[in-house]
Amino acid sequence: MLRVPYNDLYAALLRATEHLGLAGDRAALCARLFAETTCDGVYTHGLDRFPRFAEMVANGSIDVNAEPTRVAGNAAGAATLAIERWNGNLGPGNLNAYATMQHTIALARRYGLGGVALANTNHWMRGGSYGWLAADAGLFVMCWTNTLANLPPWGASTPAVGNNPLVIAVPRPNGAHVVIDMAMSQFSYGALSAYAARGQQLPVPGGYNLSGNLTTDPAAIEASKRALAIGYWKGSGLSLVLDMLAAMLSGGNAAHDIPLESTRESGVSQVFLAIDPSSFAPAEELDRIATGILDSLRAATPIDPAKPVRYPGEQTLHLRQENLRLGVPVNPETWQKLQTLSF
Amino acid sequence: MLRVPYNDLYAALLRATEHLGLAGDRAALCARLFAETTCDGVYTHGLDRFPRFAEMVANGSIDVNAEPTRVAGNAAGAATLAIERWNGNLGPGNLNAYATMQHTIALARRYGLGGVALANTNHWMRGGSYGWLAADAGLFVMCWTNTLANLPPWGASTPAVGNNPLVIAVPRPNGAHVVIDMAMSQFSYGALSAYAARGQQLPVPGGYNLSGNLTTDPAAIEASKRALAIGYWKGSGLSLVLDMLAAMLSGGNAAHDIPLESTRESGVSQVFLAIDPSSFAPAEELDRIATGILDSLRAATPIDPAKPVRYPGEQTLHLRQENLRLGVPVNPETWQKLQTLSF
Repeated sequence: MLRVPYNDLYAALLRATEHLGLAGDRAALCARLFAETTCDGVYTHGLDRFPRFAEMVANGSIDVNAEPTRVAGNAAGAATLAIERWNGNLGPGNLNAYATMQHTIALARRYGLGGVALANTNHWMRGGSYGWLAADAGLFVMCWTNTLANLPPWGASTPAVGNNPLVIAVPRPNGAHVVIDMAMSQFSYGALSAYAARGQQLPVPGGYNLSGNLTTDPAAIEASKRALAIGYWKGSGLSLVLDMLAAMLSGGNAAHDIPLESTRESGVSQVFLAIDPSSFAPAEELDRIATGILDSLRAATPIDPAKPVRYPGEQTLHLRQENLRLGVPVNPETWQKLQTLSF
Repeated sequence: MLRVPYNDLYAALLRATEHLGLAGDRAALCARLFAETTCDGVYTHGLDRFPRFAEMVANGSIDVNAEPTRVAGNAAGAATLAIERWNGNLGPGNLNAYATMQHTIALARRYGLGGVALANTNHWMRGGSYGWLAADAGLFVMCWTNTLANLPPWGASTPAVGNNPLVIAVPRPNGAHVVIDMAMSQFSYGALSAYAARGQQLPVPGGYNLSGNLTTDPAAIEASKRALAIGYWKGSGLSLVLDMLAAMLSGGNAAHDIPLESTRESGVSQVFLAIDPSSFAPAEELDRIATGILDSLRAATPIDPAKPVRYPGEQTLHLRQENLRLGVPVNPETWQKLQTLSF
C-alpha cells in the first residue's frame, strides 16, 4: 500500500479541482473535503471517488460553478422560521452540503434548533463530514440524503427505494465526537465488489442470490441486484420515510426520480437538522452524560477479549491520527491519475 | 379470539384508569390511547400492556397526578427558541408524550420546526400514537425514546444499549399517513416470547444462542439475552446515538441509568421533533411527491404475487378499519381482568 503525506494529497487534489474548473476557496474546500475523507479512512468516498466526480463534471451532471440558493425561509432581517428550503442548482455535492450545514448551524444558533431541506443537489460524498463539521461547532446533527433506487423494498425482488445514508453526530470535547454515518443497506455495492475482488464471503448475509435465498456471497448479490436493507423490513421502511421527508420537504426528487446510471446519479434531495444545546444544557452536564454512556458501553463484555467495544466514530478518529502520522493510504493507480490529471 | 366493540373497550379502560386514580380529561385520554393502540393492532402496547401499567402505578414508578413542566425554553411571550426541555415528573408515559407532542406541534406551527426533549418520563406505550397525532395535524414527525439497556452492543455479549424505538411520520391526506414505529432490536422480547409460545421459529435470525451463534430459535435468544440489533453493527450504533441525544438534550437518564426490572423501567428520556411544511411546501406538491413515491413502491415486483408491497402504516390503517367494523380483538383473560378491575 502506498502512503502519501496529507499535505501532498491535498495539494494534488487542489490542482485537480482547479483543473475541473473550480477556483479559489471553492477549489480549496472541495479538495480539503476529499482529502479529509481519505485521511479519515473512508476511502470509497475520498480519493477513490474522485474519478467519478470528474466524470460527472465532464458529463454535465455537476455544475462546478453553481451554488445553493434559498427558495423559502426567512427574508433578510425577518426572522420567523427555523427551517428553510434551498435549491442546490446541481452544484458539487460536497460544497453544497457544506454550505447547507453552515446555514443550518446558523439557524440552530438563532433558534436552538434549525433545519434546511436541499433539493437538486449532488452526491455529498462522505455524509459524515457534515456531522463532524457541526459537532466541531458544539452542535448535535441529523442529516440524510436520498440516492438512486438501489434497494428492493421488503417483499419485492426489484429495487424501488434508495439506501439513503443517515448521519447523526453527538458533539464531545476535544473532537472525540460520536458520529454514525450509515446507509440503509447492510452493505453498499462498493463494499460487495470489494469483498468479491478479495474472494471473501460477507460476515453476515447481505442480500439474496438469484434463487431468492439469503446469501453471504457478494457476487451472487451483485448478480441478483437484491441487496438487503438493515433489519429486513425495518430498514426498508426507514429508507422509504427518509426519502419521503427529503423529497417532500425540499420539493425535490425522490429516489425513483433519480437517474439509475451511477455516473448520472444527480439531483438528489437532502435534509439537515442541527441542535445547539448551549442555551439549555450546561457543557458540564452534557459531558457527564456522554461519558457515562460511553463508559457503560466499554463496560460490556467483549465477545473477543482482544476487541473492546467501540463507539461510532472512534475508529475514524484513530485512523485520522494514524494516517496523519504515517501518511494517507492511496490506491497507487488513482494517485498516479490524480497527479497527471488524467481522469 | 374474542372481539369487543371499540366503545365497550374504551368504556372499560376509562373505568380502569379512573380506578387507578386518574380523573376527568386525563383518565379519558389515557383510556383512549390504550384503546386506539389496541384497535390499531398494536396489541402488545394496548390492552395487553395495561396490567403492567397498573402495577407500575401501584409500585410508585408512575405518578398518575404528575404532569410535565418546562425546565428550559421560551419564557411566556419571549419567543427565541424552537426547542425546549421539559421534565415529565414521572407522570403516565402516554399522557406525558401526548402533551409533549402538543407542545412540539405548537413550536413547529410557530417556527416551522419545533423540538422538545423530555426527561424523567415513563414508557410512552405505542410511540406511533404521537406520530399519528402530529400527522393528523399535517406535520412531519421524528420522535424517539430510550429504554432500559436490553441489547448487547455490537461486539459484546452483555446488554449495554436500549432498543430505543424511533417513530417517523409523514402526513398524507385523509389520514393515510406513512408512519414507521420501530425498535432498534430485530425482535422485541415480547415478540420472542410470542413466537416461543406458538412453537414457531423466527422468520430471520433474531439473536444469538448460548453458544454464540446466530439463531432463529426464540427460546435460545431468551436464554442468552443476546437479542440482535437491526443491521448488526448499524442498529447498535444507531441505538447508542439515539440514547445520547435523548439523555443529553433532556438532561435525563441514559439507558444504563434506567432500572433493569421491567416493572421498574421508569425515568426514561425522549425527543420530539416536528416540522410544519405549510409555510414553504404547497399541499398539492406534498401530495404529488408522496403519491409518486408510494406508486413507485407498489410498482416493485412482489416476491409473492399475492402479497403486494406495503408502506409502513398501511396495515395499521387496514386493521383499524377492520377492528372498528368487527370489534377489537382482546385477550379474554385480560379483558376479564379489566372488567373486574382486578390487575
